[in-house]
Amino acid sequence: MKINCDMGESFGLWALGEDAAVMPALDMANIACGMHASDPSVMMKTVALAKDNGVMVGAHPGYNDLQGFGRRDIAMNATDLAALFIYQLGALQGICQSQNTRLSYVKPHGALYNAMMKDDAILETLLGALQRYDVTLPFVVMAVPDHARYQTLADKFGITLWFEAFVDRAYDEEGRLVPRSVPNSSHYTDEAIQHQADQLIDQGCVTTLSGKTIAIHADTLCIHGEGPFAVSTATYLRKKLQKKAE
Amino acid sequence: MKINCDMGESFGLWALGEDAAVMPALDMANIACGMHASDPSVMMKTVALAKDNGVMVGAHPGYNDLQGFGRRDIAMNATDLAALFIYQLGALQGICQSQNTRLSYVKPHGALYNAMMKDDAILETLLGALQRYDVTLPFVVMAVPDHARYQTLADKFGITLWFEAFVDRAYDEEGRLVPRSVPNSSHYTDEAIQHQADQLIDQGCVTTLSGKTIAIHADTLCIHGEGPFAVSTATYLRKKLQKKAE
Amino acid sequence: MKINCDMGESFGLWALGEDAAVMPALDMANIACGMHASDPSVMMKTVALAKDNGVMVGAHPGYNDLQGFGRRDIAMNATDLAALFIYQLGALQGICQSQNTRLSYVKPHGALYNAMMKDDAILETLLGALQRYDVTLPFVVMAVPDHARYQTLADKFGITLWFEAFVDRAYDEEGRLVPRSVPNSSHYTDEAIQHQADQLIDQGCVTTLSGKTIAIHADTLCIHGEGPFAVSTATYLRKKLQKKAE
Amino acid sequence: MKINCDMGESFGLWALGEDAAVMPALDMANIACGMHASDPSVMMKTVALAKDNGVMVGAHPGYNDLQGFGRRDIAMNATDLAALFIYQLGALQGICQSQNTRLSYVKPHGALYNAMMKDDAILETLLGALQRYDVTLPFVVMAVPDHARYQTLADKFGITLWFEAFVDRAYDEEGRLVPRSVPNSSHYTDEAIQHQADQLIDQGCVTTLSGKTIAIHADTLCIHGEGPFAVSTATYLRKKLQKKAE
Repeated sequence: MKINCDMGESFGLWALGEDAAVMPALDMANIACGMHASDPSVMMKTVALAKDNGVMVGAHPGYNDLQGFGRRDIAMNATDLAALFIYQLGALQGICQSQNTRLSYVKPHGALYNAMMKDDAILETLLGALQRYDVTLPFVVMAVPDHARYQTLADKFGITLWFEAFVDRAYDEEGRLVPRSVPNSSHYTDEAIQHQADQLIDQGCVTTLSGKTIAIHADTLCIHGEGPFAVSTATYLRKKLQKKAE
Repeated sequence: MKINCDMGESFGLWALGEDAAVMPALDMANIACGMHASDPSVMMKTVALAKDNGVMVGAHPGYNDLQGFGRRDIAMNATDLAALFIYQLGALQGICQSQNTRLSYVKPHGALYNAMMKDDAILETLLGALQRYDVTLPFVVMAVPDHARYQTLADKFGITLWFEAFVDRAYDEEGRLVPRSVPNSSHYTDEAIQHQADQLIDQGCVTTLSGKTIAIHADTLCIHGEGPFAVSTATYLRKKLQKKAE
Repeated sequence: MKINCDMGESFGLWALGEDAAVMPALDMANIACGMHASDPSVMMKTVALAKDNGVMVGAHPGYNDLQGFGRRDIAMNATDLAALFIYQLGALQGICQSQNTRLSYVKPHGALYNAMMKDDAILETLLGALQRYDVTLPFVVMAVPDHARYQTLADKFGITLWFEAFVDRAYDEEGRLVPRSVPNSSHYTDEAIQHQADQLIDQGCVTTLSGKTIAIHADTLCIHGEGPFAVSTATYLRKKLQKKAE
Repeated sequence: MKINCDMGESFGLWALGEDAAVMPALDMANIACGMHASDPSVMMKTVALAKDNGVMVGAHPGYNDLQGFGRRDIAMNATDLAALFIYQLGALQGICQSQNTRLSYVKPHGALYNAMMKDDAILETLLGALQRYDVTLPFVVMAVPDHARYQTLADKFGITLWFEAFVDRAYDEEGRLVPRSVPNSSHYTDEAIQHQADQLIDQGCVTTLSGKTIAIHADTLCIHGEGPFAVSTATYLRKKLQKKAE
């Protein structure tokens, strides 16, 4: 099981996240591509940091919305969305290529990620675009109880899916994240985060906000690179997964 | 000798240039990369148009300045400029890759083009970035009497230069373009344009605004894709070069 | 009855619309504010053109989306939307003030206009923002059969509404515009446009796409400033309304 | 003597500066207008914070360059620069108006500020624009030994100048700031900052980096709202100036 984290979400003078502290603990760095966050210089530095730490570079494309940090839905048609998506993959791959490295996977960001999990048309637009761009790149989606139907959909495009679960967000009984607007939608102690991580790693399940236990089979765990638990969570997961691997 | 032209400089709803009419006559399409003009959807369409017409795709990167159309100097440091340049090459290459084609060369745009012809530090920043990105891509610079020194400079980076001349712009005695602010800096009749084209193709020279004849050895001729002479110039050059090749 | 038209929707080098030809026929110029179109220089020129022609300046604020020309829904929260709206009013008022003129009314643009006509929460956000900015500025909404409920809603904020009808778009039986994706949603002959204009001016009604006649009471008629019918429609309406006024 | 500080330079999700902690100590808040930093929502919050603390709102317009934070020269022509400047004044005034307050002065930002201090043509463009927008608004420039010539220049436009000095930056013998690229160009201890503040307030002079004492007559002192000395400097100056006023 791999650890992934959004990285490189600073922009110009504005810093965000503790990339240098968190990167060493990661397997996968989801690197912003200049539309919802980042700029070419931040991308260059972030790819260098990932490479120095032997961390896979993933494209983290989002809507073109710096002010909204890619967290606002934008009603794009499929043609524009596919082009915007490919543009970002290419831009980050160009940055990688200039450092003798390459993209290893793709994980959409924010509102785009949520939209594709809710609307198959959007998911198919992204998968179709990825098929045309590079069918060998794995694509990260949310680990959900009905993940078989996502796999079936991706199979139509020949795309490998990597399913991810979240260690610091509460789940509802459908296996979806509880919206941030709901109380207790995030875990705010190391104990709660590490408990959910243990469940996901050791038992393939989570306890929902309502107290039920549901099965979640994840290929990768997503952590957040900012906030007070970024470094402690990254470190905890790295140690636990290393011990498990021994 | 090849014909090159800036293509794909529309943006969103705003159309610019007669790309569909001019493209069939070209050898090289300098395609804007979303910073001074264009957007991912326009890039997608323009690459398709180039591919359909068997025209080489060149990256046409510029400063990040849509309002100024990349024609205003922006004082970027070398690190930021190199990253911005590579970002644009990668983005267009991504668009190409999704259509099973690829970048064939690079030609900077507008103020960036002028800056690199005036300031070796900027030219070296771009050449160094291109070397890291893909050393095999030829790089277009202006055909000038002192082109040997440009070649020497490019040799340090292992980059092939393609020298371009302009058929519709007046030259001064140093072999530089007369600034647009000076009267008669552009040719505004088919006769004047075709006369300069004939000189460049048949004799390797141009007559300066002051009446002198100077040698200009060009690998490629640049035409403009908008305005009343776009199609007639493209057609004239295509016929003339075809006849010459027979 | 007044004639209004979107003006000043060029951006940088990209020209759009026949502002100089259409402006003299207008009463109200809806001037873009730099978010969905335009830039400060275009705004300066367009305000000057309106002033020279004795045409009222209206703010035409839209979503912050140049590539999408403000025609794509963006899911903004009320706080951000109100601030974005007021920002644009202020910016255009600043441009006016520097030319000793002023805003006379407000008409939202594109997706924002459609959103406020469909979603009372969005309409109330805009009305509330306008109340705080300048409660004396009239606000343009679509003339619809149920316009009394819009008036009631605006009364809560103390805002005067101006209802507008469209002379070149087809209506459905609810008195809403037929979406552009439907065949025959726009009128493409001078005859059809002028017929609908006559109905709206002389009889306060339109014939729907389905053939019914419905009442539409408009304070102002909206024409489009680009396309083959811009000038002929503007001229026809101006003459007709002048004759009626005599 | 008044204390001024750049405020409201966050953007979207990205926070910058300790506005809430510093604002109470200020007389003048230079509020970014959305071009080099900020967005309409940040502006709304920052104006509210200034108003709550009884601090004057000043417009802090900059080049349109978020990535470069307005610190990079952009070669704009006078027409475009004047329009961009007025656009920003109007936008911030609109935000103020919606909160029943108003602009009290103008201070350009970053590269634009430096450019106007070096190039009279740029300064005259800004003064001319301010004259057309609102001739009663004072305009902040750097307090320099040759400030009489700046006053003469401003008098042509009928603009009042407020001269500002810097408490945490080193001066050269011409009374200009030592560029940030030079060692010791900034003061990095409370003692050094407070010493320079004492000199400026009590004696109207500063000690240059080379050790000379030169006269600097300032109407206002500029502090920086971020970094480890923001709050301590603001507090020190407020206390000192209060004591002096008693």
